[in-house]
Amino acid sequence: MNNYPPYRIGIVGFRGYSGEELVRLLTAHPAFEPVLMEHRTDAAPRPQPLGHAVRETIPSTSAAARAAGLTACLLATPPEVSMELAPGLLEAGLKVVDLSGAFRLGSLETFERWYPERHTAAALLEEAVYGLPEFYRERIRKARLVANPGCYPTAANLALAPLMESGLIDRAAGIVCDAKSGVSGAGRKPSLKTSFCEVSDNLSAYAILVHRHVPEVLQHSGLAEAELSFTAQLLPIDRGILETIYFRATADSAQELLAAYERRYGREPMVRLYAPGTVPDIRAVRRTNYCDVGFHLDPVTRRAVVVSVIDNLGKGAAGQAIQNLNLMFGLEETLGLCSA
Amino acid sequence: MNNYPPYRIGIVGFRGYSGEELVRLLTAHPAFEPVLMEHRTDAAPRPQPLGHAVRETIPSTSAAARAAGLTACLLATPPEVSMELAPGLLEAGLKVVDLSGAFRLGSLETFERWYPERHTAAALLEEAVYGLPEFYRERIRKARLVANPGCYPTAANLALAPLMESGLIDRAAGIVCDAKSGVSGAGRKPSLKTSFCEVSDNLSAYAILVHRHVPEVLQHSGLAEAELSFTAQLLPIDRGILETIYFRATADSAQELLAAYERRYGREPMVRLYAPGTVPDIRAVRRTNYCDVGFHLDPVTRRAVVVSVIDNLGKGAAGQAIQNLNLMFGLEETLGLCSA
Amino acid sequence: MNNYPPYRIGIVGFRGYSGEELVRLLTAHPAFEPVLMEHRTDAAPRPQPLGHAVRETIPSTSAAARAAGLTACLLATPPEVSMELAPGLLEAGLKVVDLSGAFRLGSLETFERWYPERHTAAALLEEAVYGLPEFYRERIRKARLVANPGCYPTAANLALAPLMESGLIDRAAGIVCDAKSGVSGAGRKPSLKTSFCEVSDNLSAYAILVHRHVPEVLQHSGLAEAELSFTAQLLPIDRGILETIYFRATADSAQELLAAYERRYGREPMVRLYAPGTVPDIRAVRRTNYCDVGFHLDPVTRRAVVVSVIDNLGKGAAGQAIQNLNLMFGLEETLGLCSA
Amino acid sequence: MNNYPPYRIGIVGFRGYSGEELVRLLTAHPAFEPVLMEHRTDAAPRPQPLGHAVRETIPSTSAAARAAGLTACLLATPPEVSMELAPGLLEAGLKVVDLSGAFRLGSLETFERWYPERHTAAALLEEAVYGLPEFYRERIRKARLVANPGCYPTAANLALAPLMESGLIDRAAGIVCDAKSGVSGAGRKPSLKTSFCEVSDNLSAYAILVHRHVPEVLQHSGLAEAELSFTAQLLPIDRGILETIYFRATADSAQELLAAYERRYGREPMVRLYAPGTVPDIRAVRRTNYCDVGFHLDPVTRRAVVVSVIDNLGKGAAGQAIQNLNLMFGLEETLGLCSA
Repeated sequence: MNNYPPYRIGIVGFRGYSGEELVRLLTAHPAFEPVLMEHRTDAAPRPQPLGHAVRETIPSTSAAARAAGLTACLLATPPEVSMELAPGLLEAGLKVVDLSGAFRLGSLETFERWYPERHTAAALLEEAVYGLPEFYRERIRKARLVANPGCYPTAANLALAPLMESGLIDRAAGIVCDAKSGVSGAGRKPSLKTSFCEVSDNLSAYAILVHRHVPEVLQHSGLAEAELSFTAQLLPIDRGILETIYFRATADSAQELLAAYERRYGREPMVRLYAPGTVPDIRAVRRTNYCDVGFHLDPVTRRAVVVSVIDNLGKGAAGQAIQNLNLMFGLEETLGLCSA
Repeated sequence: MNNYPPYRIGIVGFRGYSGEELVRLLTAHPAFEPVLMEHRTDAAPRPQPLGHAVRETIPSTSAAARAAGLTACLLATPPEVSMELAPGLLEAGLKVVDLSGAFRLGSLETFERWYPERHTAAALLEEAVYGLPEFYRERIRKARLVANPGCYPTAANLALAPLMESGLIDRAAGIVCDAKSGVSGAGRKPSLKTSFCEVSDNLSAYAILVHRHVPEVLQHSGLAEAELSFTAQLLPIDRGILETIYFRATADSAQELLAAYERRYGREPMVRLYAPGTVPDIRAVRRTNYCDVGFHLDPVTRRAVVVSVIDNLGKGAAGQAIQNLNLMFGLEETLGLCSA
Repeated sequence: MNNYPPYRIGIVGFRGYSGEELVRLLTAHPAFEPVLMEHRTDAAPRPQPLGHAVRETIPSTSAAARAAGLTACLLATPPEVSMELAPGLLEAGLKVVDLSGAFRLGSLETFERWYPERHTAAALLEEAVYGLPEFYRERIRKARLVANPGCYPTAANLALAPLMESGLIDRAAGIVCDAKSGVSGAGRKPSLKTSFCEVSDNLSAYAILVHRHVPEVLQHSGLAEAELSFTAQLLPIDRGILETIYFRATADSAQELLAAYERRYGREPMVRLYAPGTVPDIRAVRRTNYCDVGFHLDPVTRRAVVVSVIDNLGKGAAGQAIQNLNLMFGLEETLGLCSA
Repeated sequence: MNNYPPYRIGIVGFRGYSGEELVRLLTAHPAFEPVLMEHRTDAAPRPQPLGHAVRETIPSTSAAARAAGLTACLLATPPEVSMELAPGLLEAGLKVVDLSGAFRLGSLETFERWYPERHTAAALLEEAVYGLPEFYRERIRKARLVANPGCYPTAANLALAPLMESGLIDRAAGIVCDAKSGVSGAGRKPSLKTSFCEVSDNLSAYAILVHRHVPEVLQHSGLAEAELSFTAQLLPIDRGILETIYFRATADSAQELLAAYERRYGREPMVRLYAPGTVPDIRAVRRTNYCDVGFHLDPVTRRAVVVSVIDNLGKGAAGQAIQNLNLMFGLEETLGLCSA
């Protein structure tokens, strides 16, 4: 039905929420075929219907990957597992997209400041390409190792970049990013914090000013730490992120801000803009790979509010990983994503 | 079982969410007895258990109020109904606590800027006392007409006042108040915006920078409109408000901020403070009359984040109305509220 | 990319929940192209991203349908609108799939007993084919007018049929069908019953024994009204149905029941079975067109419990409508549905 | 303010959901004073407001209980902990209400059939009184050890008893009890099954026909196992139970059923009845100690459906424990419960 080569793509961590979404997206993808790779995993399999082909799994080793004819691997794993697996897979000639934070930060020093883990594959930090296609498309095409961005930074950086580049933000007054996320962002491992009775009927703030996604925003927006106040909050929903971003604009017309966004994203397939004064909600992007951005500007006082939404499992994780994979294989960037 | 006089208190709007909460609180209150007053209402009664005393209702007129021996009336009604009823009830000698926005703003001019309704009882605007006991306790004790504060301003003003008074906020950099509310704040009248399928799995921002609660914050904090960026957001929960407030502090120690809060609220029964670096979540105040306040300060960059939570039907509406009523009747301020 | 003819399919009621799902499914469908037809509608359009093609709409008349080159129409409308539109559309030569209850019941007499509406197109009742492909595939292929089944009857009939046909149910003891549904089944029109604050933290039973979906179950299962007790309950979720069905089995081995299911559904692409003692939950079929069925049998007492789940907007409405449309156009039955 | 003696009551398991509710209820109770008893516990304390009296805790030993002047102990603990603690506490002269399943079943044989745990205090099984006041009020008054009923059996037994006693149920046709519960019933210990992302947007059936609460229903209703089909289902809400009970009535008038209920519960303060054809929902009893019961009867076919609702942490656990404690101390049965 199409002429795409049937690239076989390994998925480690396929029982986690990002992993399940990768399996769902790759199963429907016209050019890729998912291959499940078992690792040490605490999640039990879900009950499966009879007769519906149970997918075979292979071990999460580079030898098994080679034997199974894999061309690339997606690591939907904690940082320490990604550090453990990535070097061997790359050495075995596979492309790797890592969904953890292991390779996102440009230097060991920065990593060590924000992550508690010891980095066991620091040699790869420099090579890894930050997988935000709207920023680094050309480098992603040629990458062996792509560090898929964090969910919060994806929504923040896409909202901020056009304004920063056009000098439309009064940085001296500081920028506030108030972020709210669905619970699947915390992974599938049971914990009190993600238990139903703790999350439902509730909203809670955590990692105020010190979330480990902050350095990703700083790194790619050019902001200094002192200029950005970031708070993460846990919403009683399973998936979706909304960030409300506040700053003082240097412009006094909404049209100027919109123009900056349109210049930057006019041809971007995965970023959608809204008319000034109109903002998207989380449902607008649920189960899609879109980042939707809208804003309000008070022209008199130049107070500006930008609302940026993504699905944390879509553009915030699995969707973006597929977008990167498409680029790495020279395919159309949105393949398998549009009808997500 | 106690010696309180049995004050009979009328409730108009008793089928709305704030009204139901007023009935619940007054029913358990040792000094007050609720009397339901029927008005034009769209909400159908809920099915009631057999035999459990169906409460009598009386018309929402001042004649009926007098005949029923009411001493005060609680108006859990839209502004236009409050404007219609308040003058007659006051004239008939009753005390009135109005939960709508009709009498909250100090001048007709301000009212007309922020509310679409025409004010039909503007003569009362000057007399009405703003019912935030932590600010205006003495005036409330003597008031005939109390304007019960809006839910958002209650959480914002309680969080901001001690810091403003102590000069701990760098106002030039602006203040951000990112507010999230449960759906009951929008009232019980059915609408697409508050339908289950629109609210669940979602978060949506509305009234960005122009919410009609903003002038209440400005009026009582002393902030200018240009200094405050306020956004309201609808949470998929029934009740509760969390506001995340960002500013640059003029102090570089968390202890200084805490000291300002403790000076102001050390003896306040309804405001609870948290250790610096610790913040409350919405469940901490669910079904209570508390306002809980916690904060983070980065001493190096002086970025500060305050989290203030209330139950929008408690301290944000019905609970605070009872607190005001207690004051107006010379009772202990927390009567009927502590075990809420 | 494929050789399917581009059939243009009209959708009336495209802003309702079933209608939105039809648009989503048809947009990704390789053989159909959705055409939106405006009717008298109370739902306001949602805010749309800029630049992303706003779909043209045409009036919901047969003249407009013909002018736009439509081959079929999907009516995601209340029964009275379906009765109004179906005759003209059929006369204009279009195929029609009606998602309302207007044409589901075999006789005017039955319709009048269960529906409050007066039937204004009763002449079509006999012609209409009940659109449950697993039961009436061949008749659907040749139909002009398909009455898409109700959501509750779809889950119930698919669970009951194999057991009824094999005589595995002791009908004398009666059958209980305890049904629970997400809120989208009630449509998008705002009402107190579907308001967030009424549905959240709640479960409520309604239409006990008298739900108008009951006659659809009776008609296609062959049960008498006295043999079936059906209760509908409103879950605090947006989409999904779970029915728990109780009966006394005439067999004393789970294997016999499973064999009956497998005989009937072994080749059905849209019904999935589970190992005895294992049952599906609602998330197993969320956003799919599957009906998943599992059961428990106590071999000693022959008490049996079947759990049947569907997505009420998928197999319970829009998905099943596409499945029917595929049959009516001679296409592969699952086209555009598998990756739903 | 009252003349009640200040009985000091120990609570073991005070950080679990039932335990937290016990603390809340006892804190507001006019005759009891809660004393927190630390046991081996995995739940971390929640952040507490400053200055608000942190309650002292004592060890969960009988020595400590005696030293602290406790008169009774509430065990909100798993069965194995209750078996461990109850004997010593009783020996030390304390009254004990156990909220676990350790002492609910009348014989070791029954316990061993339904519970996986080994019973380490079987000598107490005979002495323990089943704490359903509506059934065993006089025995509870004199009890040293009360086994607080399970949440599901409380709703089921209260709904069934009057009908069973009056012979209004055709037992030959069997009884179905389809039960749905909020998540807090599963306790506070984190698990995949109670994680937010698994429970939200979902409904799942579990322990079909074999739930360990079943023998409690059989024991107190007089039904045989073969006569009752019971399924438990996990609702996406934090607290509340609704049971839909189906049977064939031997009467053909709703009035007869109502009369049976009224005879039995006419003077019961904690059971509320509804007019025939009207049923309560979960919100009707949220955060109360009521059991609300309503029903439908089809007089022609004698199909009957009873809906019984409780709050699983109220009448289903902590509330009922207080009701029992009131009886054991000769107090008014509803003390501290009415305004719950």
